[in-house]
Amino acid sequence: MSVTAPQGFEAAGVAAGLKSTGKPDVALVVNKGPQKTGAAVFTSNRAKANPIMWSQQAVSDGVVEAVVLNSGGANCFTGSFGFQTSHLTAETAAERLGVSAGDVLVCSTGLIGTGDERFRSRVLEGTVAAADALSTEGGSDAAAAIMTTDTVPKQAVRSRDGWTIGGMAKGAGMLAPGLATMLVVITTDAELAPEQADRHLRAATRMSFDRLDSDGAMSTNDQVTLLASGASGVVPDDEAFVEELTSLCLDLAAQLMHDAEGASHDIRIEVAHAASEDDALEVGRAVARNNLFKTAIFGNDPNWGRVLAAIGTTSAEFDPYGVDVTINGVRVCSQGGPDRPREEVDLVPRDTHVLIDLFVGDATATIMTNDLTHAYVHENSAYSS
Amino acid sequence: MSVTAPQGFEAAGVAAGLKSTGKPDVALVVNKGPQKTGAAVFTSNRAKANPIMWSQQAVSDGVVEAVVLNSGGANCFTGSFGFQTSHLTAETAAERLGVSAGDVLVCSTGLIGTGDERFRSRVLEGTVAAADALSTEGGSDAAAAIMTTDTVPKQAVRSRDGWTIGGMAKGAGMLAPGLATMLVVITTDAELAPEQADRHLRAATRMSFDRLDSDGAMSTNDQVTLLASGASGVVPDDEAFVEELTSLCLDLAAQLMHDAEGASHDIRIEVAHAASEDDALEVGRAVARNNLFKTAIFGNDPNWGRVLAAIGTTSAEFDPYGVDVTINGVRVCSQGGPDRPREEVDLVPRDTHVLIDLFVGDATATIMTNDLTHAYVHENSAYSS
Repeated sequence: MSVTAPQGFEAAGVAAGLKSTGKPDVALVVNKGPQKTGAAVFTSNRAKANPIMWSQQAVSDGVVEAVVLNSGGANCFTGSFGFQTSHLTAETAAERLGVSAGDVLVCSTGLIGTGDERFRSRVLEGTVAAADALSTEGGSDAAAAIMTTDTVPKQAVRSRDGWTIGGMAKGAGMLAPGLATMLVVITTDAELAPEQADRHLRAATRMSFDRLDSDGAMSTNDQVTLLASGASGVVPDDEAFVEELTSLCLDLAAQLMHDAEGASHDIRIEVAHAASEDDALEVGRAVARNNLFKTAIFGNDPNWGRVLAAIGTTSAEFDPYGVDVTINGVRVCSQGGPDRPREEVDLVPRDTHVLIDLFVGDATATIMTNDLTHAYVHENSAYSS
Repeated sequence: MSVTAPQGFEAAGVAAGLKSTGKPDVALVVNKGPQKTGAAVFTSNRAKANPIMWSQQAVSDGVVEAVVLNSGGANCFTGSFGFQTSHLTAETAAERLGVSAGDVLVCSTGLIGTGDERFRSRVLEGTVAAADALSTEGGSDAAAAIMTTDTVPKQAVRSRDGWTIGGMAKGAGMLAPGLATMLVVITTDAELAPEQADRHLRAATRMSFDRLDSDGAMSTNDQVTLLASGASGVVPDDEAFVEELTSLCLDLAAQLMHDAEGASHDIRIEVAHAASEDDALEVGRAVARNNLFKTAIFGNDPNWGRVLAAIGTTSAEFDPYGVDVTINGVRVCSQGGPDRPREEVDLVPRDTHVLIDLFVGDATATIMTNDLTHAYVHENSAYSS
């Protein structure tokens, strides 16, 4: 089960009263070693939440003992009081675990601006309770405690050559940008030096969470953390490890996409024969962020005109009259003009594949996104987050 | 009214069967002179429709005799056949009017990919019928014929110092980007040289249509045209003319905002004390394009956290802990932290004012946008455009 699947990890998830529903809202993941390697990547939003600012400092030496995560409040734009709360959270966990507070990361998710006295006392109480509830079977409890608008917990495991990687995720968004805060904790019992952990994590997130673009809105609190315990005693082959880590991240990213707020279609936008990978990503993102395209897919309308109009807003190399668009296997646009009748496209299945062929180079990239639905508008207008 | 308010102009709007509803769908605006000055600005989308490509050529000498506009089909991504259709439309109008085809502009709006034989024959028949129906009272008919998802025609008139400016607009979008194609024709009986017309038009659109950002989606067909007949015999003061032209464009832009697809709030995002006008515009646009902010306003939720999170995605100069956000007169965020309770903000009125104070410089800019609603999703998923 997720973060406790590899050897050397304990986790817990408890209810501390942060969520009005009374559901679990504080999670703790602890690395029991023997190695205490940690690496993390953070939101690129320039407005960063307090836990992000704390964790960026704490992870800088490559040593991480534990991660405390809370839902029910983002502790963002809560000033120096809020930063102190993140600091106190780390100290509370550290004291209970007998480690240094500087080796404890903190993640928060929920409404921006939430971080008052009441929030602080509940997070600290929850941290103590979670430390008392730690277990090598606690991965699923932790995964449940970080859920916000998620309808299901997200977990994944990969094993190879004697080592294991486990991960949990929450959010219906992505590293940058993010619809809701994306929090991910990944654990492994492989032996990794801090520099390796950092490099592998960046390689894997670049191909997975960075390519998930649910609604183009970038969170202030996104964080992906990798902890390595070395408890397997196995030094992994670099390439094999990155392959499995990327596979696990893609798995979690697909789970996030599938549970995106209000989505009724999981859309993979594949851009082929671009002049560069950057071009392919820019085109994929421009289409993924186009509300007219997203509402068309919701309406089961294979509207290739909106795809081309979105491509036209990019700086990518392309000829408007040299683009093919294929939706769910039917080429509806060929060389910038109508091809097969749109009636031939079946958009009833949830899985949707949009292939954009630019015919200018060899680069390719796939962006994962979802449609824009009534349920999205409802969720985001009726509830604060 | 509108384009026929100034002296020296005739217009018409007729039904040519392009719209399935049978409503008017071809408009013609003719400059009877004595001057035939014309200027135009076009979408910055790199995927440009055939009428755009035609009109860019035709306007380049600063002489414009007439503009033919059709709804019911965008004639975009319709290949060389589509370009020929735009050319034939200009020729048909020119023949009927006894002028050169190279002095006739063409605008189209509707579904991308529409531009077959049937479309061509109806546009050409409509052009002939419109030429036969020309009248100095035809402004309102023309304004009605360019409507697509618009619920009301948009017209405005300004007069000063013996000259008059009239304008009509359609679309629920903007020059760049655009939700739906924005087509605008502005006429004046002031005496203007082509270079003046071009300069004044750019000055006015920069402060008006360019700052209307409905849903961040840029159309392939946007065009704003200014025709000057000189029929008043008055050479206007440059500053006075730009002032009135800008006022008229802002009036039309506000009408477009008010009629934006599915909108329930007209939102003005004012960015104050930015380091530069570019910074102010970048911040305003980032907020205007943030779906989470737009759905929050739909839900009458003064969610300043989403405003700050959107600002964080920009490259503008700002300190996250040095920003105030005031919504409808209530300062809900002060120096990057909570201020007045959100309950004090009344978001029931349609007119919504968001003031973002960056406290770093002297520049200011206002972006006009609207909220993201169920009706927007419905309109754009249920109907192709």
